[in-house]
Amino acid sequence: MGASSLAALALALGSATALQLPRSARRARPATTTMAVDGLRFLSPTGVVKCKESFGTPCYVYDAPTLVARAEEALAFPNAFGVTVRYAMKACPNGAVLRLFESMGLHFDASSVFEVRRALAAGIAASKISLSTQQLDDDFGDLVKEGLKVNACSLAQLEAFGAAFPGADVGVRFNPGVGSGGTSKTNVGGPSSSFGIWHEDFDEVAAIAGKHDLNVVRVHTHIGSGSDAAVWQRVSRMSLDLCERLGGTVETLNLGGGYKVGRMAYEQSTDLSVVGEPVKAEFEAYAKRTGDELKLEVEPGTFLVANAGALVTTIQDVTSTKGSEAGNDFLKLDCGMTEVLRPSLYGAQHPLVVVKRDGTLNAEHKPYVVVGHCCESGDLLTPAPDEPETLASRDLAAADRGDLMVVESVGAYCAAMSTAGYNSFPSAPEVLHDKDGNFHLIRKRSSLDQLTMNEVDVDLSAL
Amino acid sequence: MGASSLAALALALGSATALQLPRSARRARPATTTMAVDGLRFLSPTGVVKCKESFGTPCYVYDAPTLVARAEEALAFPNAFGVTVRYAMKACPNGAVLRLFESMGLHFDASSVFEVRRALAAGIAASKISLSTQQLDDDFGDLVKEGLKVNACSLAQLEAFGAAFPGADVGVRFNPGVGSGGTSKTNVGGPSSSFGIWHEDFDEVAAIAGKHDLNVVRVHTHIGSGSDAAVWQRVSRMSLDLCERLGGTVETLNLGGGYKVGRMAYEQSTDLSVVGEPVKAEFEAYAKRTGDELKLEVEPGTFLVANAGALVTTIQDVTSTKGSEAGNDFLKLDCGMTEVLRPSLYGAQHPLVVVKRDGTLNAEHKPYVVVGHCCESGDLLTPAPDEPETLASRDLAAADRGDLMVVESVGAYCAAMSTAGYNSFPSAPEVLHDKDGNFHLIRKRSSLDQLTMNEVDVDLSAL
Repeated sequence: MGASSLAALALALGSATALQLPRSARRARPATTTMAVDGLRFLSPTGVVKCKESFGTPCYVYDAPTLVARAEEALAFPNAFGVTVRYAMKACPNGAVLRLFESMGLHFDASSVFEVRRALAAGIAASKISLSTQQLDDDFGDLVKEGLKVNACSLAQLEAFGAAFPGADVGVRFNPGVGSGGTSKTNVGGPSSSFGIWHEDFDEVAAIAGKHDLNVVRVHTHIGSGSDAAVWQRVSRMSLDLCERLGGTVETLNLGGGYKVGRMAYEQSTDLSVVGEPVKAEFEAYAKRTGDELKLEVEPGTFLVANAGALVTTIQDVTSTKGSEAGNDFLKLDCGMTEVLRPSLYGAQHPLVVVKRDGTLNAEHKPYVVVGHCCESGDLLTPAPDEPETLASRDLAAADRGDLMVVESVGAYCAAMSTAGYNSFPSAPEVLHDKDGNFHLIRKRSSLDQLTMNEVDVDLSAL
Repeated sequence: MGASSLAALALALGSATALQLPRSARRARPATTTMAVDGLRFLSPTGVVKCKESFGTPCYVYDAPTLVARAEEALAFPNAFGVTVRYAMKACPNGAVLRLFESMGLHFDASSVFEVRRALAAGIAASKISLSTQQLDDDFGDLVKEGLKVNACSLAQLEAFGAAFPGADVGVRFNPGVGSGGTSKTNVGGPSSSFGIWHEDFDEVAAIAGKHDLNVVRVHTHIGSGSDAAVWQRVSRMSLDLCERLGGTVETLNLGGGYKVGRMAYEQSTDLSVVGEPVKAEFEAYAKRTGDELKLEVEPGTFLVANAGALVTTIQDVTSTKGSEAGNDFLKLDCGMTEVLRPSLYGAQHPLVVVKRDGTLNAEHKPYVVVGHCCESGDLLTPAPDEPETLASRDLAAADRGDLMVVESVGAYCAAMSTAGYNSFPSAPEVLHDKDGNFHLIRKRSSLDQLTMNEVDVDLSAL
């Protein structure tokens, strides 16, 4: 996810800055005074103020109706012989989110044994969890005995699994040799990717499976398939070829996740009903050819949660370097890379919406550079797309110190990939927003004591 | 820090990859079999194994003798009328490190009120702490009453301070209008920087100070001064001009931090005894001209701790996509962007040293791509310099699964700027390494319970 999809975004945008949107995208917006710039996704302006009053800022808000709607879309993924939707829980692992998705029939994709244990602690049954990890820690065996499914992601992992569970069913994650980005760029498929077993090592997979009498019942590929139906067709065909080479043991093909989600108005989202059709056709053709009716698994993370999350923040200062030719007007938030690392890490773009402190919207707008609260020049909410170190300004409603700013589309990889503790800032609370507009706390703000609770005193004279 | 110094590094290196080092730099290394590639800084190979046996991996190790040596260098900063060295504690805020530096006579630079409270909790007196922050929270007043020094970093902060403490002494951080990077790049000085009060707003500073009867006794500028003595001279001259314009109230000029430290063998470090000489001369000239003998303050962070830290990790898998023309051999560590974010964030380079599991070094070496343990393509320890999304390979001693890897120069902005919790990985422990080679635990590894301790149960039927 992340890096490669951003690289694709950058290609799509060329060197455009945040201000140089395609005109068509800007025209498509409703021309109301309250929506001259990006608007709120699911919160109301007064809801934003209420959220601050109840929980302080910064505060993550996840919208339950949006989570439910996205999960329903994923469950309707076109399929020939059944589909299991596994939530890639690393995107947003709060227990309440996991339990909400479980109540709808979703299963789970864990990326580490720690994540498996976290899901178990949240009340998820081991049998609903599948582990595809870069690091298969030695203690995975206990989890398998509880019902965890393991997809071996390297030859060494397959060997370790086979040694521990001879004769058992297992999954294998392959790197099919293609990815969604260039060859020298970080990627989740192709020769630049370390994820999964390289497809040319197929014979070694067969040898290890044979040595330990393993049944390869699942094949997993994940190349960050994006929104192009033709790519999905190609990936499913290549993956089905791997299933066929493994003979009749395979029951399930897992095509991973990485479905592009548009956070900004000018970005496109993946339509699962479109990309899934050629996949369904390929599964049907496979069944005709081999007699095997494979079950499909998909692993959406960003797709399910990205646009269901908003960060409510306070504009705690307004400063300017105007007077200089290259001067800027800055809005300083009480959040930053501590809560939303994606702009600093990838040059990712998130919609930003000013809400006046009295819960109204302001029609007047002007360009601002928006920065975070860390003592670090890279703590920037408005980088140029895909260029984390280049400033861009963004047209926003005119704002004063004390107004609120909603950072939209922070449901995925924000609370989950936080640098909280940097500059000793606490972890922001998380709340669920229900269909009636009420807020339910699902994680409290952390305390300073928690930040240092594992520190141990040392006798300096011993050094 | 960080972003701008990396941009400068990128300029210096051009498009060179990690493998295309200046030949002179490579030749300059001792041609022993144990040092064909980067070597250990302060640990011995057997010490690395001992560390793993005692604390597990990954584990941060800080070398007390190196910390002491760097602090002594900083305390010897050339000065005309006295110098106060403030440790920029955001670089590595563990209480043991703070207390070690305090025992040597260092004072502290805090970047948030949370950091001030953290230092107080570690036993540091408020009078030794100065706060220069992007976010002056409303509760700063209590800390000032305890003795905290505040440098107002915006007009609004100066106004808030004046309203709370009329007639008091205060510091002012200015943005003098120049920085160490390009104008559209993130920077700690110049029109692209939101740090400090824009120099053209001088009259407003004077007006607010006058209104609240404030004495501006400290002037602070920080432009990330690097290792060029000419830049230091220019910055100190511009800053002294600001002091002079403020009249006779100023007692201290703080030139901030941001001193470049070479982590890789081919990178240059700042020699404080060189860059400090023109600063000293400027202070002397100022005293001659005005009669005011200003005290100097400097705020090193990276300088004090960067090369005093190492991360001991285990190579938990070795995989390959060879067979393809663009194929790579990958080493997968049991750490990653969770412990060392700088490569993923800035394309930063850290020395990497393979230690065989039996505590020996291997003379044979080959190119590897080194990746972290997160399920994310950007979790990369060997990006191309300044290009976080581009893979580079690094010549390293031949390694097997189960060998150890030391990531060197992780003392600054690694444990402090961690994404621990991403993929639900725990926070790594921190230990101090003493002059006799013994290890002292200063922070325990976090537990899974701690990761979810602030979560709150919610009734899903209420959503």
